Amino acid sequence: MLKPLGDRVILEVQKEEEHTVGGIVLAGNAKEKPQTAKVVAVGTGRILKNGTKLEMTLKEGDVVVFDKYAGAQVEYDGHDYLIMREKDILAIVE
Amino acid sequence: MLKPLGDRVILEVQKEEEHTVGGIVLAGNAKEKPQTAKVVAVGTGRILKNGTKLEMTLKEGDVVVFDKYAGAQVEYDGHDYLIMREKDILAIVE
Amino acid sequence: MLKPLGDRVILEVQKEEEHTVGGIVLAGNAKEKPQTAKVVAVGTGRILKNGTKLEMTLKEGDVVVFDKYAGAQVEYDGHDYLIMREKDILAIVE
Amino acid sequence: MLKPLGDRVILEVQKEEEHTVGGIVLAGNAKEKPQTAKVVAVGTGRILKNGTKLEMTLKEGDVVVFDKYAGAQVEYDGHDYLIMREKDILAIVE
Amino acid sequence: MLKPLGDRVILEVQKEEEHTVGGIVLAGNAKEKPQTAKVVAVGTGRILKNGTKLEMTLKEGDVVVFDKYAGAQVEYDGHDYLIMREKDILAIVE
Amino acid sequence: MLKPLGDRVILEVQKEEEHTVGGIVLAGNAKEKPQTAKVVAVGTGRILKNGTKLEMTLKEGDVVVFDKYAGAQVEYDGHDYLIMREKDILAIVE
Amino acid sequence: MLKPLGDRVILEVQKEEEHTVGGIVLAGNAKEKPQTAKVVAVGTGRILKNGTKLEMTLKEGDVVVFDKYAGAQVEYDGHDYLIMREKDILAIVE
Repeated sequence: MLKPLGDRVILEVQKEEEHTVGGIVLAGNAKEKPQTAKVVAVGTGRILKNGTKLEMTLKEGDVVVFDKYAGAQVEYDGHDYLIMREKDILAIVE
Repeated sequence: MLKPLGDRVILEVQKEEEHTVGGIVLAGNAKEKPQTAKVVAVGTGRILKNGTKLEMTLKEGDVVVFDKYAGAQVEYDGHDYLIMREKDILAIVE
Repeated sequence: MLKPLGDRVILEVQKEEEHTVGGIVLAGNAKEKPQTAKVVAVGTGRILKNGTKLEMTLKEGDVVVFDKYAGAQVEYDGHDYLIMREKDILAIVE
Repeated sequence: MLKPLGDRVILEVQKEEEHTVGGIVLAGNAKEKPQTAKVVAVGTGRILKNGTKLEMTLKEGDVVVFDKYAGAQVEYDGHDYLIMREKDILAIVE
Repeated sequence: MLKPLGDRVILEVQKEEEHTVGGIVLAGNAKEKPQTAKVVAVGTGRILKNGTKLEMTLKEGDVVVFDKYAGAQVEYDGHDYLIMREKDILAIVE
Repeated sequence: MLKPLGDRVILEVQKEEEHTVGGIVLAGNAKEKPQTAKVVAVGTGRILKNGTKLEMTLKEGDVVVFDKYAGAQVEYDGHDYLIMREKDILAIVE
Repeated sequence: MLKPLGDRVILEVQKEEEHTVGGIVLAGNAKEKPQTAKVVAVGTGRILKNGTKLEMTLKEGDVVVFDKYAGAQVEYDGHDYLIMREKDILAIVE
C-alpha cells in the first residue's frame, strides 16, 4: 500500500482500451497530453505558508483528467501508478 | 461532465467558421495568438496564501478571449474543450 | 465590447501616421520598443495576496507608453487592440 | 552518525536485489525514475516564513518512494546513503 | 509630459560629451555598463504585497548611476529618455 | 579572521588524506559531489521576511557534509576555506 | 560622492598588489572568484515585504570578501568602484 505525502495523489492509470471510459478521448497534442486516471490514494494536504493545512479536494475513487507530463511512474503489485501533486490535476469526471 | 479543479475553467473552443462571431478576428501573431471560446464549467476558485478562497470572476456561458498557448486540450463526447486557469483568460466579450 | 479581466487594460494601437501625436517618437531599439496607445477599457483591478483588490491607476482615454513586447493582439470591429497587464504600462502621456 | 539539517532525511538505498521488497518494481521511465529506500535519520523540520517550525512527517524506519534525481549521494561506514528534502519524498510504503 | 507608473522613473540620458560631468567615467565592462542620467520624473511609488504604498527615494533633478541594460528607451520632444524601475538605479551622485 | 555575513558559514576544507576521517567516503557522482568540512565561523543568522532573525543551527567545530558545488573558495593564511549558506549544508557528522 | 540606493554598498576595489593585504589570497576557481574590497559607502537598507526597513550590517571602512561576478563597475575620480547588494557580500575581514 502506497500513502502519498503532502498534497500528492496516487493515480491508477487507465489502460489503453479504457481510454474512452467516461467518454474522454484525448486530442493528439504533442505539447501537452492530458489523460484520465482513477485516484487510489490521497495525501493529508498541503501546508500553507502560515502553517495551516489545506484539505485535499480529491478523494479515493475520483476519475480525473491530469497533465500527462506531471508526476512520477511507479509499478506496484502489477499495477501502474502515477504520483503527482493535486495541483496538476485538471478536472474531475463526474 | 468535466468539473475543473481550483481556479480552472473549461472552454468550448469556437469552430473556425465561428471565429468572427462576436466580431472578433484574431491578428496573425506567431508569438501569441489569443482566441475566443465559451465557458462551459468553472472551478470553485483559487486558494490564496492565507487560506481563503477567491471566488471565480467567470461564469458558465461567458464568451472569452484567451491566450492560445495556455491550457490543455481535451475531447469529450465529441466536443473540443480547453482547460486552463482563469488568470490566462484575457477578456470577456460583452 | 471587450472587458479585460483582473488588472488588464485594452489599448487601441496608434496608427503609424499617428506615432508623433503627443510628441512621442520611439527610438529604434531592437531589444525593447515601447509604443503609445489609448486606453479603451480597464479591468477591475489586481487581487493582492491578502485578498484585497488594488484599484486600477489607468482610466479610459489615457494615452500611455507601453512595452511593445507585452500583451496579446486582438482585432475587433475593424480596430486593432492590445490586451496587457497594467504593470506593463510604462508611463502616461499628460 | 549523520544528522540531516532542516527538513532533510537520510535514506539507506535499497540494494538491486531488494528492489522488489515491499512489492515495488519501478517503471523504466528515462525522464523520472523513483526508487525505494529506508529512512535512517530525519532532520528537525522546515522553518516556515513566519519563523515557526514544521514537524517532519517521516520517521526513522519508514520505507519511502522518492524521486531518483533528488538528493546527494554519501557513502558512510560501507553503506550508501541519500540526503534529500522531505518534499522530494513521494510516498510511504505501508 | 510623461508621467511614469508605479515605482518607475524617467531619466534624461547624459550626452556622450557629458559623460565626465560629475566626475563619473564608466569602466569598459561588456557584461554590465552602468551610466549616469538626470531624473526628470518619478512615479507614485511601489505597492507592497500588503497593499501599502512605498514612497519613492529619488526625486526630480537627482543625478543617478543606473544599469545600462535596464529600462526602455523613449524619445520625446527631441530628448532621449529612459524609463526604468527605481530598483534598477544603483546610486545617486551627490 | 573572516566573519561570514547573514546565514553563511565558513568551512575549513578537509584535506584529501582526511577524506575518510569520520568514516565518510564520498560516492563518485559527477552530478553532485558532497564533501565534509569543519565549520570555523558562523554568521549571525538569516533574516526572515517578517524581519525576525533565525538563529544558526551550526556552531564552530561542527563537521558537516555539504554540496560540493555550493559556496565560494577563499584561501586565508595558508588554509583553504569555503563560504556558503547554512541551507547548503546537508548534514552534521556526530 | 556616490550614495548607493537601498541595500547596496559601494566597494573600493583592492589593487592587484594589495591582494594579499589582510592575508587573503584567492583560489583560482574559474566558476566563482571572490575578492576583497573596502566599503566606502552603504545604502539606507532593504525594505522588507511588510514595509519595514532592515538596517545595513556593513559600515564604511569594512574590508569584505565578495563574489567577483556580483555588482556593477564604476570609475569615479580616478578610483575603481563596485556597486552591489549587501547580500552579495560573503564575509567581513576582521
